Amino acid sequence: MNDVLIIGTVALDTIETPFGKVEKVLGGSATYASFAASFFAKPALVSVIGRDFPKDCMELMKSRGIDVEGVKIDDKTFHWEGFYEYDMNEAKTRKTELNALEHFKPEVPEKYKGIKYVFLANIDPEHQLSVLRQMNNPEFVVLDTMNFWIDNKKEELIEAIKNADVLLLNDGEARQLFSTANLVKASNEALGLGPKAVIIKKGEHGALLFTKNKHFSAPGYPLENIKDPTGCGDSFGGAFIGYLAKTKDLNEQNFRRAIVYGSVVASHNAEDFGLNRLKNLAMSDIEKRYREFQDIREF
Amino acid sequence: MNDVLIIGTVALDTIETPFGKVEKVLGGSATYASFAASFFAKPALVSVIGRDFPKDCMELMKSRGIDVEGVKIDDKTFHWEGFYEYDMNEAKTRKTELNALEHFKPEVPEKYKGIKYVFLANIDPEHQLSVLRQMNNPEFVVLDTMNFWIDNKKEELIEAIKNADVLLLNDGEARQLFSTANLVKASNEALGLGPKAVIIKKGEHGALLFTKNKHFSAPGYPLENIKDPTGCGDSFGGAFIGYLAKTKDLNEQNFRRAIVYGSVVASHNAEDFGLNRLKNLAMSDIEKRYREFQDIREF
Repeated sequence: MNDVLIIGTVALDTIETPFGKVEKVLGGSATYASFAASFFAKPALVSVIGRDFPKDCMELMKSRGIDVEGVKIDDKTFHWEGFYEYDMNEAKTRKTELNALEHFKPEVPEKYKGIKYVFLANIDPEHQLSVLRQMNNPEFVVLDTMNFWIDNKKEELIEAIKNADVLLLNDGEARQLFSTANLVKASNEALGLGPKAVIIKKGEHGALLFTKNKHFSAPGYPLENIKDPTGCGDSFGGAFIGYLAKTKDLNEQNFRRAIVYGSVVASHNAEDFGLNRLKNLAMSDIEKRYREFQDIREF
Repeated sequence: MNDVLIIGTVALDTIETPFGKVEKVLGGSATYASFAASFFAKPALVSVIGRDFPKDCMELMKSRGIDVEGVKIDDKTFHWEGFYEYDMNEAKTRKTELNALEHFKPEVPEKYKGIKYVFLANIDPEHQLSVLRQMNNPEFVVLDTMNFWIDNKKEELIEAIKNADVLLLNDGEARQLFSTANLVKASNEALGLGPKAVIIKKGEHGALLFTKNKHFSAPGYPLENIKDPTGCGDSFGGAFIGYLAKTKDLNEQNFRRAIVYGSVVASHNAEDFGLNRLKNLAMSDIEKRYREFQDIREF
């Protein structure tokens, strides 16, 4: 029985960083999120791929126990081409070929509609809203987004945020969306829209959790070798909701643990290109690094 | 008996931020550092002021128990004029009048020479080295600096770093000094020069401690209202060494606590212009926020 529904993109990515280049490798927000979630839970995917989608990519997803019944096949697979410069902080886009995404209408299979944990990974907020409307009263909704939707579909995005329990975004997006440099103010604005919690992802600087009266700061993991940060935010979100679905505890204290698991999986993800690290990651690697996170913040 | 020697600048600052402006208020790296240190220890100052230095500023320093016998009087007081933009992350300089600093030759009074804890606050690295040479075998030396010295006196700065036990710098400076975007690599380079520990100050993102085999990450404090970040780095350093001088424990675990005390005092400092917050701060405010830091990072 699946316990996390994930809507987002499945892509073929071409990525260049100062440490190398890969072409048309498996990527997309829903892919990274479902790989990360699969360490803790049984994710079901709603997305679209093209008829060119490589068979071994599909096999890889299935091998992680990801249910792909909600993945449509149409046209060509979404293709993103981007690069990172020296500081590795921000992906720069060279090319975006929407392909199958252009006319995508997400349809939630009947057997997914009762799933209680829903992750609206980064994709057009209209698709996020459409999936939410198809679900039967989900218990817990996490929403992620990116600057593109803040620029181009702000109204729909705000509507989607109003329907989420947790808003996930990075620091730059938080400052942009709420027109303030101050992350505390941005978070208070976000909480005012409806979510019970806001999580701000800060890359190497860790992550912040804001709820009504509490604040949590998760440290960043000191990575000496970052090869490719693509998908780190999506992996973070996937592990976060996967851990919560596994433990079925939605208290603030458990959010904190879920955020650290998110940070652990995301930090592993950055250590190699595409999904290379996550596809070989073991639960023991995750638990080992979780204990390192405990030591890093102890005083 | 004084237990921390601090060399650095005493200045009159004119500061503009999006939240207001102050003119010719008491400032300088040694001033902020000694105010912060004075909550934990008895600082002795080596610096220079001008004949224009306001009497009430001098009284204020003395009222904090700061020993000013090592402060020379010559010419006019060093004057810095700067501003902060919207994001408050970086001070931009409008004007620097070196005045008395131009021909300053630091002289350590005889009665200070046996002090065991030395803070080389931000000032010309030649002055930092000169003070070190005058001291009788100090037990523990912390060195702070800024981008100006990396640009203009790199060789002297490296020499000073080789003589320090702890190097303190902000993330931008660490990346610049060691020509790498990666803070783990930068810290390893710094440790290779001699210091036993490197502390990287990251403003709102907290602070990192790197020693040979250990890593600590202190959270940032979620400040909703930052009025003026001037002197936060200096306050951090002053509280750090002050706490160590008070507790006389130079183990890594105690460094962690000292870093949190540094973060606590620096976060208070940003809440008002100049020294307005620190001059009214009580030890109970510090202890209260220290406990908040414990809660912020707990998972």
